[in-house]
Amino acid sequence: MSTTTSTSSGPFSAESYFATQPPPPTLEHDIDGVRAFLSRQAGKGRKVVLVTSGGTTVPLELNVVRFLDNFSAGTRGATSAEYFLQAGYAVIFMHRQFSLQPFSRHYSHSTNPFLDFLEIIGNDPTIGVTPSKKAHLLEILSAYKSVQNEGILHTLTFVTVNDYLWLLRAVSQELSTMKRKALYYLAAAVSDFFLPRRKMFEHKIQSGKGNLSIEMDQVPKILKPMVEEWSRDGYIVSFKLETDQTLLIPKARAALERYGHQVVIGNDLNRRKFEVVFISRKLPATPNAEGDRKAAGGEPDSGQASSTSVATWLRLDPQAVEQGKEIEEDIVAELVKRHQRWIEEESEI
Amino acid sequence: MSTTTSTSSGPFSAESYFATQPPPPTLEHDIDGVRAFLSRQAGKGRKVVLVTSGGTTVPLELNVVRFLDNFSAGTRGATSAEYFLQAGYAVIFMHRQFSLQPFSRHYSHSTNPFLDFLEIIGNDPTIGVTPSKKAHLLEILSAYKSVQNEGILHTLTFVTVNDYLWLLRAVSQELSTMKRKALYYLAAAVSDFFLPRRKMFEHKIQSGKGNLSIEMDQVPKILKPMVEEWSRDGYIVSFKLETDQTLLIPKARAALERYGHQVVIGNDLNRRKFEVVFISRKLPATPNAEGDRKAAGGEPDSGQASSTSVATWLRLDPQAVEQGKEIEEDIVAELVKRHQRWIEEESEI
Repeated sequence: MSTTTSTSSGPFSAESYFATQPPPPTLEHDIDGVRAFLSRQAGKGRKVVLVTSGGTTVPLELNVVRFLDNFSAGTRGATSAEYFLQAGYAVIFMHRQFSLQPFSRHYSHSTNPFLDFLEIIGNDPTIGVTPSKKAHLLEILSAYKSVQNEGILHTLTFVTVNDYLWLLRAVSQELSTMKRKALYYLAAAVSDFFLPRRKMFEHKIQSGKGNLSIEMDQVPKILKPMVEEWSRDGYIVSFKLETDQTLLIPKARAALERYGHQVVIGNDLNRRKFEVVFISRKLPATPNAEGDRKAAGGEPDSGQASSTSVATWLRLDPQAVEQGKEIEEDIVAELVKRHQRWIEEESEI
Repeated sequence: MSTTTSTSSGPFSAESYFATQPPPPTLEHDIDGVRAFLSRQAGKGRKVVLVTSGGTTVPLELNVVRFLDNFSAGTRGATSAEYFLQAGYAVIFMHRQFSLQPFSRHYSHSTNPFLDFLEIIGNDPTIGVTPSKKAHLLEILSAYKSVQNEGILHTLTFVTVNDYLWLLRAVSQELSTMKRKALYYLAAAVSDFFLPRRKMFEHKIQSGKGNLSIEMDQVPKILKPMVEEWSRDGYIVSFKLETDQTLLIPKARAALERYGHQVVIGNDLNRRKFEVVFISRKLPATPNAEGDRKAAGGEPDSGQASSTSVATWLRLDPQAVEQGKEIEEDIVAELVKRHQRWIEEESEI
């Protein structure tokens, strides 16, 4: 297993990608829905966040049986979406099919999502909730029904990395009409590699013929056209997940410098529930910038500071996490503040 | 992308696989649970079926982010498990984490598994079920609670193909103590390829270094030692999923001839909800064998009959499927009959 630098025809650019790979059949229908949603939110003057969540697949066969996948239950995205809704945002939740979703996440992915806390009562039987579970369920259910009544959550699903790329581009282009009121929270775990259509097997790969060799191309770096073309005024937050701690800050910083967006949130696979780092551009030394650096009780990691960016750690006490505190609450609170400043800056210009 | 016949050290046998790949850390604990479950079922004289369900993953990294996966929601296994329970079997349900499960399958993998059919009622609020959903939920819930009270469903989970192989071997060895009363219903979608431990990346594969090349080894054919060593008296049913219809019967037949077990159920990816084919050994021309060939209204596919095996089709009217009829009901009914004959044959010997 290896990575190689030899490619037959050079790496795909975003442009050559969209010119050669087919759009998902549901794209137009999905975008009609997004357009209607956005026009309702604009009418109410709401800020809108696009939350992407869950992993993408890379099918190896046209009649799909086998695919490459990324590990992601979608916890970060589903949890954050709830806190954005609480903070008054309208949310476009664009997630991998069957990954966790806001509200239902509290009961999915467990052994028996909900049958275990329902009871059959009486002879002319009715269905009731186990008393010890009632208060928690009532809280979740109330929040869910209120979000439904207000119509502030719009859900889109993707499966493959190709679905994701086409959908992200089209949604970003729509969302750019909201200008600075748009926030992009790109928490999906997107594959770095894909198999171009012309290289895919038509039918299920047959075993019994020896080993399997797969050579995949690099997915184009989509943040570049996103920042420069699709959503020029939006506040864009991307994530960097690593398993090697020493790579976390350098890789996050490199992404920020390369794409020129607003924030990269770095997280280590094994520490992501209680520790993340915000990497953002160093601002001129105004009181505002100083406030930024001390946000959320974090200290800039001066040991790894660079001349162009600043690192702000958000950390939770592991005990607090055990008691149910979610780091997404603090991540979202911090971003809501930064996004608000970004909106206000515009009116100052 | 290709399959190659060149291997550095020859293909893995089941023996060399288990000698070189590490067991999952939870194996012993899992098997203790199976042993206790089986001893309770044996005490009650129950027949026991092992149902495997869902896809397996092949991790590419030790600190797992990326993996190869097989498409499978686990519908076949979860649905069949319910019908086996209805037929009086005790069920060991060995499934991929987060794949569908008996009972909860009716409400999982939908947009909002259950929040949508709960309601908040009154000022001192209680939680109730939407009236139109009540009858169906009551039926599922009653069946679920009764299975729980009887203690006839035991659930095990796996994620990787390595978890699956170790677990299957250990569970089969335990289940073999039930002799002919044991049925093996191997519906999981198991990867044909894997990445041996020594070839895995330690950390997340870094992109930005060109294309990705993966060369995977073949998973050993586990049915062979299963039939010959681990579960010699059991009634073993395996599945063959194809996307190319013309390969369905030849591949299913080849599997039966190669491993010498009892039934291969062939299914096409796009027709599997309303059509499957049972491939079994041709029996001597007794009235019993004749009954076998005409089972469940199916006709042997004489066009493709061979001298050693017989093909029995099970087909549903697509309209019946739309109205909620599940082909697993017929598959299980047919297998229960065949398994019963298998048990009775023993007492005749």
